[in-house]
Amino acid sequence: MSSTTGTLYKITTFGESHGPGVGAVVDGCPAGIKIDTHRIQRQLTRRRPGQGKLSTPRNEADEFEILSGVYEGISLGTPIAFFVRNTNAKGNDYMRWADIYRPSHADYTYHIKYGYRTPLGGGRASVRETIGRVAAGELAAQILEQELGIRTVAWVNSIGKVDSPVMDNPPQSIDEVDQVEVRCPHLPSAEAMVKEIEAAKLDGNSVGGTIGVIVYNVPPGLGDPVFDKLEADLSRACLSIPACKGFESGSGFSGTRLRGSEHNDIFEPDSPAPEPGHRPGIEGVPQIHTTTNRSGGIQGGISNGMPITLRLAFKPTATIKKRQDSVNEAGEATTLRAGGRHDPCVLPRAVPIVESVVNLTLMDAYLRQRAARPEWWQRFKKH
Amino acid sequence: MSSTTGTLYKITTFGESHGPGVGAVVDGCPAGIKIDTHRIQRQLTRRRPGQGKLSTPRNEADEFEILSGVYEGISLGTPIAFFVRNTNAKGNDYMRWADIYRPSHADYTYHIKYGYRTPLGGGRASVRETIGRVAAGELAAQILEQELGIRTVAWVNSIGKVDSPVMDNPPQSIDEVDQVEVRCPHLPSAEAMVKEIEAAKLDGNSVGGTIGVIVYNVPPGLGDPVFDKLEADLSRACLSIPACKGFESGSGFSGTRLRGSEHNDIFEPDSPAPEPGHRPGIEGVPQIHTTTNRSGGIQGGISNGMPITLRLAFKPTATIKKRQDSVNEAGEATTLRAGGRHDPCVLPRAVPIVESVVNLTLMDAYLRQRAARPEWWQRFKKH
Amino acid sequence: MSSTTGTLYKITTFGESHGPGVGAVVDGCPAGIKIDTHRIQRQLTRRRPGQGKLSTPRNEADEFEILSGVYEGISLGTPIAFFVRNTNAKGNDYMRWADIYRPSHADYTYHIKYGYRTPLGGGRASVRETIGRVAAGELAAQILEQELGIRTVAWVNSIGKVDSPVMDNPPQSIDEVDQVEVRCPHLPSAEAMVKEIEAAKLDGNSVGGTIGVIVYNVPPGLGDPVFDKLEADLSRACLSIPACKGFESGSGFSGTRLRGSEHNDIFEPDSPAPEPGHRPGIEGVPQIHTTTNRSGGIQGGISNGMPITLRLAFKPTATIKKRQDSVNEAGEATTLRAGGRHDPCVLPRAVPIVESVVNLTLMDAYLRQRAARPEWWQRFKKH
Amino acid sequence: MSSTTGTLYKITTFGESHGPGVGAVVDGCPAGIKIDTHRIQRQLTRRRPGQGKLSTPRNEADEFEILSGVYEGISLGTPIAFFVRNTNAKGNDYMRWADIYRPSHADYTYHIKYGYRTPLGGGRASVRETIGRVAAGELAAQILEQELGIRTVAWVNSIGKVDSPVMDNPPQSIDEVDQVEVRCPHLPSAEAMVKEIEAAKLDGNSVGGTIGVIVYNVPPGLGDPVFDKLEADLSRACLSIPACKGFESGSGFSGTRLRGSEHNDIFEPDSPAPEPGHRPGIEGVPQIHTTTNRSGGIQGGISNGMPITLRLAFKPTATIKKRQDSVNEAGEATTLRAGGRHDPCVLPRAVPIVESVVNLTLMDAYLRQRAARPEWWQRFKKH
Repeated sequence: MSSTTGTLYKITTFGESHGPGVGAVVDGCPAGIKIDTHRIQRQLTRRRPGQGKLSTPRNEADEFEILSGVYEGISLGTPIAFFVRNTNAKGNDYMRWADIYRPSHADYTYHIKYGYRTPLGGGRASVRETIGRVAAGELAAQILEQELGIRTVAWVNSIGKVDSPVMDNPPQSIDEVDQVEVRCPHLPSAEAMVKEIEAAKLDGNSVGGTIGVIVYNVPPGLGDPVFDKLEADLSRACLSIPACKGFESGSGFSGTRLRGSEHNDIFEPDSPAPEPGHRPGIEGVPQIHTTTNRSGGIQGGISNGMPITLRLAFKPTATIKKRQDSVNEAGEATTLRAGGRHDPCVLPRAVPIVESVVNLTLMDAYLRQRAARPEWWQRFKKH
Repeated sequence: MSSTTGTLYKITTFGESHGPGVGAVVDGCPAGIKIDTHRIQRQLTRRRPGQGKLSTPRNEADEFEILSGVYEGISLGTPIAFFVRNTNAKGNDYMRWADIYRPSHADYTYHIKYGYRTPLGGGRASVRETIGRVAAGELAAQILEQELGIRTVAWVNSIGKVDSPVMDNPPQSIDEVDQVEVRCPHLPSAEAMVKEIEAAKLDGNSVGGTIGVIVYNVPPGLGDPVFDKLEADLSRACLSIPACKGFESGSGFSGTRLRGSEHNDIFEPDSPAPEPGHRPGIEGVPQIHTTTNRSGGIQGGISNGMPITLRLAFKPTATIKKRQDSVNEAGEATTLRAGGRHDPCVLPRAVPIVESVVNLTLMDAYLRQRAARPEWWQRFKKH
Repeated sequence: MSSTTGTLYKITTFGESHGPGVGAVVDGCPAGIKIDTHRIQRQLTRRRPGQGKLSTPRNEADEFEILSGVYEGISLGTPIAFFVRNTNAKGNDYMRWADIYRPSHADYTYHIKYGYRTPLGGGRASVRETIGRVAAGELAAQILEQELGIRTVAWVNSIGKVDSPVMDNPPQSIDEVDQVEVRCPHLPSAEAMVKEIEAAKLDGNSVGGTIGVIVYNVPPGLGDPVFDKLEADLSRACLSIPACKGFESGSGFSGTRLRGSEHNDIFEPDSPAPEPGHRPGIEGVPQIHTTTNRSGGIQGGISNGMPITLRLAFKPTATIKKRQDSVNEAGEATTLRAGGRHDPCVLPRAVPIVESVVNLTLMDAYLRQRAARPEWWQRFKKH
Repeated sequence: MSSTTGTLYKITTFGESHGPGVGAVVDGCPAGIKIDTHRIQRQLTRRRPGQGKLSTPRNEADEFEILSGVYEGISLGTPIAFFVRNTNAKGNDYMRWADIYRPSHADYTYHIKYGYRTPLGGGRASVRETIGRVAAGELAAQILEQELGIRTVAWVNSIGKVDSPVMDNPPQSIDEVDQVEVRCPHLPSAEAMVKEIEAAKLDGNSVGGTIGVIVYNVPPGLGDPVFDKLEADLSRACLSIPACKGFESGSGFSGTRLRGSEHNDIFEPDSPAPEPGHRPGIEGVPQIHTTTNRSGGIQGGISNGMPITLRLAFKPTATIKKRQDSVNEAGEATTLRAGGRHDPCVLPRAVPIVESVVNLTLMDAYLRQRAARPEWWQRFKKH
């Protein structure tokens, strides 16, 4: 299943960073959806390198073509194929150290897995692979918003040692996040983050950080018991992003330090005043909410109507300009110093990728739930 | 896919905590495997409640029956069904608050998802569901050990605010972990943890904590690019355990605070002295290792031959003996106070569950890799 | 996926003919379904051997137990496990030729596939494996009938060289079929069939035949383009029944001899008089039917509202009482003569099996369609 | 799973007959395979329309581009995307009857399924969709031939009422089949077939027919019990080809008229003279063959080392030039007479499509078997 995921909203990505191009096929997009291609292009543009001084100078427009499944802007119900041609595939930059395993890259693991190695850079391990996911994920976002009102917003929550308080006061929209180049909507933190990135860049070094996510208006009932718990599927989606090494849902690791009485989220009837971001129950099941949200909107693996909150860890980019020790394909000790592109911090570009994989996961859970219980869909769909 | 997972080593679990019983069917276990049923029973016994003063008094032997797929202790290559009858299904204890949604339980989310609710307690959300996974996971563990030498060891790494230094000096075996009742192999920490649990119990309260995991002798090459990255599949497996709210691989969240030059794992040739826990490369690919292991044994989603290291967050048990506010099925504010069983801390019992889901994930990756590249299997299988 | 099938109504079967028992787990049965266990038992009883002089004397009641997923006769939405214990597992009968490969049985292919062989008779190749499918398929039948009015009826259409004209005048109900022991509802044909079976039995021989199927009240819109065409999924389901070697949909092989103008089914508006067995269209799509049904109710892989018609070929049972040449596990030429049970004709017992696999296939298509287009469900569900 | 199939050699097709193009993504092609692109082009050319006077005049070169997964002619182990641009997409021809449901086409069923209809002709129901399968299937054919020696050959076995005796003396190679334009390697039959097609064409009519298939050198052990029986998976693959309405394996329907003693295939030791097209057993399992092949190379759903033989029914093309009654989207009775392209017989073009879907099925079974039992692969792989 390596490059295909999803039960009903199934996505298959293809393409190497330095081959003809990258893309994705979505099988399972319902028919009759009006597709906003500008929003898809916006997410691809938010993801692409070369957006400013903080990013890699690889400058590609990442303009996409739809190869199938759409007629006059409306989905046909058949597979939708997205394709983006590579226009700046400087394979040569990579040739220089083609026989050296770059530290903390996938060079060695790919070589020993496939018994075969090409001078085409990271191949499928490249963050460029995520282009297909971003297109398919934004399509999912549009369906989720049109039919349920769901909105997913991610932001840069920390860079290196610079943390921010955004998790306690999350942004309401993508626009709010994008008002700041580093995509942290808390200005004092953002300024410190920019300094951290610039210092790393000057040093030929890189920095990691964390991404925060909030999903508004998730109706209760998404996710399934046991293996398709919503947290489980979300974590798989997030950990499949290059460089992601950690995942928290709701209170996460810090919640482990609380006692049950401090951690439990207490239910309250909705009336008279339902909370913002909360959805009412289906007929026969009362409309309630919790007074706190340490569960992060998920209980027993199923959404409970409160906003979903996640936090993800991204390691510092493995590519740095400093000279490093390593080993070549002959097994000899050697050193390398990266030329080519150098992105000191991928966090701002990871924001739309994270949104996309979250939306892909929710979309699949939504289709599964309306198969299992169309009465639920009748109650929660937007009119 | 809710109750089925895996591509080639496929497991389906079934059963409610208060119905006739719980079990699992494994489809894809290779033929000819000699099965050690005592080890399966040992893991079930490690998982079961009522093991000591730290656990719930629900006392079930959890003796399993194999319904199919095994003849004279040898696997036939056909589906293996495990079944454990419920012998102590005190549904009545739960009847008392059957119409109240217990805080931070799955009562409300199940009700709104299915439109249907039974007085059978947590049903599939119960940790009792994991019995089938533990049996199937121990079977996987035996195959992984016989064929590749892989050994998975988990332990309690923290309880509430009591942390331990075990992650820096992980245990070598399950036996080492089990020498301490609380399953933390650092005695001073273990003593403080017991006090923490006993204090919570006395208070009618509960505590959470973290579980550490190390996997020894993982050959390089397990896991796949993109959606089946080893970290992605491991995180999904772990987050599908009840109460798990966080996942870290390798340096995890703390690694986000480092610069690339501090975080990268430097490769070194194996000779003259290969590291313990490291496996050599296939023909044509040199035998190397890293001098540090911030990657946690996984690079680009694929194992690199170093030990896999994980850390998981478990929230405090939602069931407490204190009176709590809540809402009933009619939507009216009310209060409840749990009778029935009360497990102040599930962490020690979660240890074998975590080992099982890790082994299930590795087993599936192993079968996928030997399909993709049987030459790899020829090189890494134990003779 | 060997023993698991289905995307949303997923069934996993387990068990050998001579082990502890056989069963199935259904994952994906919607919640709130009232289950008629008597009808499940009826189908199991129709399937079981020892029903009369035409069948094998292996006499097992095949009483089933539900291990999970049902409370007070209502489905919970969680996996439903069915189990039937083997009570008459005469492994010894099989021991006599345990080292000989029986002609046209799976002995040799299983041996070379698994590298391992047990004296447990046919194992998974036994028709006894279908017990789980029959239980799960009857459950599907009940849901399809309750929600859409769909009814599947199969019958014995030919035995050996004795053909019948039933395909032109198919039975309306299972009861109509069961009025005749051989399950062919055309009495003159049935009498000739019984003679054919008795002659074969007297000769220590066996006979094959064909099964006809009609499905009434299938709404238009079930099945998907390309790989999940309804005919494709139905053929896979039918060919997975032991001894099935051929499949036809609608006009099948005989239709290949017609010209397009003779074969095409002409559409007609429904009004004033809609055909029986025809379902009207969704809003905005007119209500039409075809004047003939050479398409067998399926066009472009999708049901068109006309009855689905299928015809299946079953080879003569491989087990005969005559002495046959063969080869043993040492590769030496030898002969064998079967003792043990001997069923000269499995066709009458195959009738409920065929109904079950057809219903399993339709059920999965139904859940997929209501996921893809719940508006369709709103129009076609029974009120 | 509509447009994705396969467990390990997974193919996803996309594209409409009148959109930008059609293609496929193969996920699971092993790394290091040398790909013969000329052979892929040859199969695409054999499949394309406009090959001679017998076929539709739609004349497209069907030149394919590989978008990913291949470097310097060698597979990388990553997804391989094939794409063919539509160059002759005369959507306008179809516009004339855009609001009429063409008889025995998928117009009505697609409309009622999706609630949405476009003037783009048959869309996914078009035989043009099979382009991606042909490319992916030929890639599979090359791997199967390189690694196991397997060769799949299909031919036109009958056209309308003109039958041929080829099934009794099947062709040895694709080249042998292609020596005759109508792809029936028995010249007298071929001549009569051409007359049948020309007569139908002159009449503005169409003809159906049957395709025969033989697969040489299939090692014993491919296919799995229960749901992935080789016949079951082959039938699903074949019935997913447009216009296919019937499937037989081995003796098929005619075998139902035989007694067991006439039908059983008797085993014989291989020595001294193994049969051509037969593969020897693995170590410990003797080398045997059957003296007849009514099983069609498959017993218990698993290949037995004898050639696999299949026969498929294709209905006459639904598009004819004669005026036909029908109904329009408003539900009114009307008539239509097709303009546009008209292919009086698709059988010759279906030959490479059938070969492709058979090879796709065998390839997936091969990868599954080497996962389950790499020792089997060691024995049967070509050195």
